Amino acid sequence: MTAPDYGKTFALWRAGAAGVWADYTRHAFVQGLSDGTLPRAAFLRYLVQDYVFLVHFSRAWSLGVIKSETLGEMKVCAGTVDALVNHEMSLHVQTCAAAGIDEHALFTAPEAVENLAYTRYVMDAGAQGDFLDLMAALAPCVMGYGEIGLRLAQERAADTPYADWIDTYADAGYQQVCTTVGTMIDTAVARRVGDLASAPRRQAIQDRFTKATTLEVGFWQMGLTGP
Amino acid sequence: MTAPDYGKTFALWRAGAAGVWADYTRHAFVQGLSDGTLPRAAFLRYLVQDYVFLVHFSRAWSLGVIKSETLGEMKVCAGTVDALVNHEMSLHVQTCAAAGIDEHALFTAPEAVENLAYTRYVMDAGAQGDFLDLMAALAPCVMGYGEIGLRLAQERAADTPYADWIDTYADAGYQQVCTTVGTMIDTAVARRVGDLASAPRRQAIQDRFTKATTLEVGFWQMGLTGP
Amino acid sequence: MTAPDYGKTFALWRAGAAGVWADYTRHAFVQGLSDGTLPRAAFLRYLVQDYVFLVHFSRAWSLGVIKSETLGEMKVCAGTVDALVNHEMSLHVQTCAAAGIDEHALFTAPEAVENLAYTRYVMDAGAQGDFLDLMAALAPCVMGYGEIGLRLAQERAADTPYADWIDTYADAGYQQVCTTVGTMIDTAVARRVGDLASAPRRQAIQDRFTKATTLEVGFWQMGLTGP
Amino acid sequence: MTAPDYGKTFALWRAGAAGVWADYTRHAFVQGLSDGTLPRAAFLRYLVQDYVFLVHFSRAWSLGVIKSETLGEMKVCAGTVDALVNHEMSLHVQTCAAAGIDEHALFTAPEAVENLAYTRYVMDAGAQGDFLDLMAALAPCVMGYGEIGLRLAQERAADTPYADWIDTYADAGYQQVCTTVGTMIDTAVARRVGDLASAPRRQAIQDRFTKATTLEVGFWQMGLTGP
Repeated sequence: MTAPDYGKTFALWRAGAAGVWADYTRHAFVQGLSDGTLPRAAFLRYLVQDYVFLVHFSRAWSLGVIKSETLGEMKVCAGTVDALVNHEMSLHVQTCAAAGIDEHALFTAPEAVENLAYTRYVMDAGAQGDFLDLMAALAPCVMGYGEIGLRLAQERAADTPYADWIDTYADAGYQQVCTTVGTMIDTAVARRVGDLASAPRRQAIQDRFTKATTLEVGFWQMGLTGP
Repeated sequence: MTAPDYGKTFALWRAGAAGVWADYTRHAFVQGLSDGTLPRAAFLRYLVQDYVFLVHFSRAWSLGVIKSETLGEMKVCAGTVDALVNHEMSLHVQTCAAAGIDEHALFTAPEAVENLAYTRYVMDAGAQGDFLDLMAALAPCVMGYGEIGLRLAQERAADTPYADWIDTYADAGYQQVCTTVGTMIDTAVARRVGDLASAPRRQAIQDRFTKATTLEVGFWQMGLTGP
Repeated sequence: MTAPDYGKTFALWRAGAAGVWADYTRHAFVQGLSDGTLPRAAFLRYLVQDYVFLVHFSRAWSLGVIKSETLGEMKVCAGTVDALVNHEMSLHVQTCAAAGIDEHALFTAPEAVENLAYTRYVMDAGAQGDFLDLMAALAPCVMGYGEIGLRLAQERAADTPYADWIDTYADAGYQQVCTTVGTMIDTAVARRVGDLASAPRRQAIQDRFTKATTLEVGFWQMGLTGP
Repeated sequence: MTAPDYGKTFALWRAGAAGVWADYTRHAFVQGLSDGTLPRAAFLRYLVQDYVFLVHFSRAWSLGVIKSETLGEMKVCAGTVDALVNHEMSLHVQTCAAAGIDEHALFTAPEAVENLAYTRYVMDAGAQGDFLDLMAALAPCVMGYGEIGLRLAQERAADTPYADWIDTYADAGYQQVCTTVGTMIDTAVARRVGDLASAPRRQAIQDRFTKATTLEVGFWQMGLTGP
């Protein structure tokens, strides 16, 4: 399957992280969602950790508002924060409630080190660098899930119990988020570095994306085998 | 007029900043809005600066999301960021457009030092301290406008050209924001320091509120006489 | 062995993290340093990671300068940053050079996830909270090494090849650092919360210390078995 | 007098801020130091504010450590923090003590809005952008004082009572700081944007430098006429 079109910066970053990107998007956890063999316990462990992840992911997008230099950047980041905190987290709560896990338990769940490592890396990428450093660290999550959702919607077993999860990310709404963020990143790159492929910061920004992708691999692995 | 009920922390802070609070809420600029004598040029100067203010005020509320320690704090802060960036700034744009000032001009307007001083002070209060330091620096703006709006709705001249501005802040929707933020702050105080009036941090947090109020006085003054 | 006297706040935090504190200070890696059975390869892996750790640890102490509210706090933090960047890192470079690893290699060594998790957690503790949140996350490293150094100086095998490492932390100079930081933390606690044991923030700050200690356990484990 | 050679980035920034740079480096306050006509009360007011300035300036250089991406950047920033906190502030304390102002009074002096505006602008430039945004906002202070010191050492009245102040900044030690920082900035620019003069970020970074220079003008003015 070809990569989805989430903008030219994403295409560059994805190509630059080739092996690790495949490790992430085709991880055994993902394949287990697709063919339905992922154990229920692993999925629930992932769901709980993913909620804690959303808390800190919302904080990271809030840092995006702080680091924005244009109104367009602010609008995308602020809209994402609100969508995450006041909508996506609620959906998550419903899913977990259906599995017998309440919201307070979610907010206070012990955070696996693989989970913590990713979100705090993103926060610090923003503290150390500029808006692009932050976006390069955020992008693997946003766009990786979009790419996984699209692929699994085509490949999944008809009877996988994880069809709802797959649909969430294959959904046109979520795909639109990926496109909007990708376009915003392209504009942010043009404004700050011009042609990224030939820019001095090329490798440093790629390293952010690749490191964050590596940390996503660890997140799936934690879901699969426990922290 | 008695102070509006925006929670017990606000009442404590307001009493602790007594003289400065009156300088702020009863500034000549405010009185000019009420009796209609404020020159149009001063109001427009204020409006343009207030737009730049909203940009950085949104960044400060985003810092609130980052510094939140409970889901309730996150929800209030995230909702405020979205309301500011995706709604209040648009209203501002319409008002300014009606006065012949376009959005790009607003976003890139030279920022008066009195404006810059306030918002950067708030940002740094959050960087240096915790959620309460940030809230103490944000509160004078949120609640001061609420108090001014309520009072001016009663006192204003029937024919003041600034009735719309007054109504915006006297409005039940805006008053609800003040109450929600005030309640959230009370809860945040209880969680972090218990009884604020007898807490070791009492004076340090009061100093944040009082300093921010002083900077609000400077903002009105800049509106009145120019930077 | 009784705990060293690094101040009453440290004593409280240490007692509050009891089991995890023992897991950290008596980890198999530490015992291997003491009896000399730690494989050389594990020690070198640790040394390289510890250099990358020092880079980010220096950044965390710099955040301490930013979050200081008194001159005394600033002086301790600024002195620590300078000692780390312009002195301790140089010592580290010499040790590693003797083992055939050059400084550039150290600065660019791939950072193990267990390493990254700890330092970025510390940075974010500072971003989210105040000076005490940051200090609670920094303390396990500073004081844990002091306690380990003191104990191993008494218990170590006469012929352990890691005597130099042990001496570094048992040394009066390093012990003085622990005492100075501990005293500064006691003063910072008194200023901000009064009696910590009965303060509303007691548990939240303890959680910072305990979590950071847990992440230190992971760091030793990574040294022992690889990332 | 030609500009001192503090590196090619500084030369570019200085030229880009032409009129404002002259307003700053040839401000009436500066001329009063040179010919000795500056009232003693203005100088003392400046000294007290400059101490508060140094507190926050140290915090800003600490942010430089956090935002560094190379060991060279870290070393310069960490050394500067230590020099400011543990040395320059002590010198300042001595000077003020000789004028009857004690250290506690200095640390707690009410901060003039013109003072606050500059340092918090610098802090936020670092929070919003990357290392270069921070350096562009810090540079006017570091290098402007160097340039003023050099020029006044040549031009000053033989009997100005401010000869000591002038000598501090004309001194070879301080000039070396300017050269070291300037060289470090040139390297940081090469690493991040290549040729700054033709880079997309050219104007945004220039705006940081120019705005910070404008705020320095306000600082002198405050010294001259009071807050």
